[in-house]
Amino acid sequence: MYRFALLSTCLLFANSYFLAGQTDKDAFFIKEIYNTALTEGKAYEWLYHLSENIGGRLAGSPKAAAAVEYTKQLMDTLGMDDVRLQECMVPHWERGEKEVVRIVNSYQIGSLELRALSLGNSIGSGKAGLTAEVIEVKSLDELDSLGFEKVNGKIVFFNRPLDPTKLNTFSAYGGAADQRVFGASRAAKYGGVGVLVRSLTTRNDDIPHTGVMIYEEGVPQIPAIAISTNDANLLGQLLKKEVVSVYMRNTSRNLSKKKSYNVIGEIKGNEFPDEIILVGGHLDSWDVGGGAHDDGAGCVHALDVIQVLKRLNYTPKRTIRCVMFMNEENGQAGAIAYRDESDAKGEFHMAAIESDRGGFTPRGFTCDADKEVFEEKFRKLTNWLPLLSPYGLDLKKGGSGADIARLKPQKGLLFGFEPDTQRYFDYHHTNIDRIDAVNERELQLGVAAITSLIYLLDKYGI
Amino acid sequence: MYRFALLSTCLLFANSYFLAGQTDKDAFFIKEIYNTALTEGKAYEWLYHLSENIGGRLAGSPKAAAAVEYTKQLMDTLGMDDVRLQECMVPHWERGEKEVVRIVNSYQIGSLELRALSLGNSIGSGKAGLTAEVIEVKSLDELDSLGFEKVNGKIVFFNRPLDPTKLNTFSAYGGAADQRVFGASRAAKYGGVGVLVRSLTTRNDDIPHTGVMIYEEGVPQIPAIAISTNDANLLGQLLKKEVVSVYMRNTSRNLSKKKSYNVIGEIKGNEFPDEIILVGGHLDSWDVGGGAHDDGAGCVHALDVIQVLKRLNYTPKRTIRCVMFMNEENGQAGAIAYRDESDAKGEFHMAAIESDRGGFTPRGFTCDADKEVFEEKFRKLTNWLPLLSPYGLDLKKGGSGADIARLKPQKGLLFGFEPDTQRYFDYHHTNIDRIDAVNERELQLGVAAITSLIYLLDKYGI
Repeated sequence: MYRFALLSTCLLFANSYFLAGQTDKDAFFIKEIYNTALTEGKAYEWLYHLSENIGGRLAGSPKAAAAVEYTKQLMDTLGMDDVRLQECMVPHWERGEKEVVRIVNSYQIGSLELRALSLGNSIGSGKAGLTAEVIEVKSLDELDSLGFEKVNGKIVFFNRPLDPTKLNTFSAYGGAADQRVFGASRAAKYGGVGVLVRSLTTRNDDIPHTGVMIYEEGVPQIPAIAISTNDANLLGQLLKKEVVSVYMRNTSRNLSKKKSYNVIGEIKGNEFPDEIILVGGHLDSWDVGGGAHDDGAGCVHALDVIQVLKRLNYTPKRTIRCVMFMNEENGQAGAIAYRDESDAKGEFHMAAIESDRGGFTPRGFTCDADKEVFEEKFRKLTNWLPLLSPYGLDLKKGGSGADIARLKPQKGLLFGFEPDTQRYFDYHHTNIDRIDAVNERELQLGVAAITSLIYLLDKYGI
Repeated sequence: MYRFALLSTCLLFANSYFLAGQTDKDAFFIKEIYNTALTEGKAYEWLYHLSENIGGRLAGSPKAAAAVEYTKQLMDTLGMDDVRLQECMVPHWERGEKEVVRIVNSYQIGSLELRALSLGNSIGSGKAGLTAEVIEVKSLDELDSLGFEKVNGKIVFFNRPLDPTKLNTFSAYGGAADQRVFGASRAAKYGGVGVLVRSLTTRNDDIPHTGVMIYEEGVPQIPAIAISTNDANLLGQLLKKEVVSVYMRNTSRNLSKKKSYNVIGEIKGNEFPDEIILVGGHLDSWDVGGGAHDDGAGCVHALDVIQVLKRLNYTPKRTIRCVMFMNEENGQAGAIAYRDESDAKGEFHMAAIESDRGGFTPRGFTCDADKEVFEEKFRKLTNWLPLLSPYGLDLKKGGSGADIARLKPQKGLLFGFEPDTQRYFDYHHTNIDRIDAVNERELQLGVAAITSLIYLLDKYGI
């Protein structure tokens, strides 16, 4: 392992934090963690249940309630301390009947049904649906430049693809998501009557991707529906040659808020119980598919960390807390409730790790913290690279996760677990985000990676 | 990118090989290579044809001949120099009728059909098949310890799983493959009448995996059939409690050798044409499935390297030669023919890169060379890490590939392209090694990684 050797050499000169014997013990224990996660891990079995037996579990839905009950029972069975539900009030959105998006009048292809999914939070079109001419834009700016005259009465079609040259697909996603989130209100400002949004995926395929959209206050609400990338390509091609009208119909609706819960359990630390190391994912998912990668994987990662540590008879010095956050997808009510209670109690999260980038082969962690403390803490962290890099794990600066980012003012370290990103947006927010999209070894390696980092955080502090 | 920064620092002190301006130019060109491979790559499209339209292409079969013709035409279309077929005589094995492996007399489960595939090179059982009591062993050594008395007249069942704690699945595979390759002859020495072999995969599933087996000279030949890991687990469980007999039937047979071909094309170097940089994979696959990862991926990687370099109007200093090797799976007649002709011509392969570990996200390259020259050459190579590690590519010592290893006496550098290994043995040698097991971005990133290394090898030599 050339890289390991080189890093070791560098770090030997740079730092003598570890006594050699201690490093050997840590390396040995981390190997034990990997062996256990790969041979006696439970993450895949639990994810099967979450994804296939429970299924898509949008906040406020009966399936989300079932997932709360299931993971609470798992925490009880694992013998965790202080297992509890933490109340939060979540939005309650329903998709309604199967969406229809139909090209009605192309002289090139006649009429054609497009593969479509309403965006989360979108209102419905009314039972009768609506038909209007389509105007394509590649960005919110382009829409602004067109103005009221060209947009009024039309369906606005946002068709900017993810940039395929970005190696990290999350960067590509981040560069295109504004169309989905803000497109409807921007279109409505100029008189648009509905929006179609190109699905946010790096693939060209027939799978529509849902995801959250947000209405701006004071702007008329119009329906917003995603179409598959193949259909978006087709529609874009047609529009180069002709005027195309589309019929769109969805019966999505926003109901009154519902009570739901974060699920929390922990292993109390025996030396520094007030220093919390949080590990978690979000329990809700979109309603379609099984929410296997997003974010069943993160939930079972966190739960299996506890199972692996218990199996190894590890007694933590610090409190290791496992949190299943509710409502990450469309409101983050769970994250807010958690932060509010934690701040009110004066808690200190020495570290928090969120897994919300899927269950693929681990590549490391992105690290974040309040800027006053970040550089010093990050430098200390990198002492552990010789223990982590043999497993292909890197530590780099970057955002953590939507559910834990609000803990930053507590001045602990925030981590985002980072697996390989290439396949994530093949499945994200779709009906194919199911257990068969998850490889068992890749998932269990994620458990091992996160457990190893938690072991080091617990043993040495930051 | 912390790792990049650290490595850069180390290498700055260690070596001043690069002028800063030159490094910038190289970084820019490598980024162009990535952009081109990700936006205008052809590997996935070509692999679709190889895997789905041609399909499993065992050496000596009509499909292998179709693959020879297809890839030769591609090389012609790409405008490569000196496109040619290189003759080799390959074994000609046929699977015959669908295999039957049936538990016939379990008091626990009655009778049951097991999911089975004959091993490559295995003879048939005869039309009538054979029925015998099964004896399970976990290793060749255990078989030796049982001896003639316990083995005579029985079917020997090799049931040692791949070690799941090995992070690199190729190591796990290497630790279990002796059962498949040598099991039949070892069993026959002690009077065994047939062998069943646990499929060589890290998964527990219903998919049987074929692969090569070899008969020892002077030992009776007996039929050898792989069964799925789920079936192997079941059979192992039954055998703990009872005597089980199995009926096995296959009509596989070895026919006389057939003429086949390596497919070769190149871009002649304009400065050092006699320094050859080879890039290749093997064109043959097993007969089941589509040979998508093994090794269609390696073939289209190599072909798309040429396409990308041509698209970038790159004129190489050295000769870049693309080779589709025939018969890697069951004889390596193509590799031998290539080596023989190359040695006879007094050629020098300054470098050779083989891709035969699937089309997954790239992690780097393993490097090998004659021991007289290895350390010095490897040290020079590592100067390029600052250009490669931003793309997640590492260089480490390790074997190269079955088709190019015979070139070692020419004292060039031999590379094995190394993608992520976690999923490879889910598909290896099965009917599910099809295009839908390949992610387009992951495949195209492989093209970019290999092209980048070739660019550096060509520009700077070793």
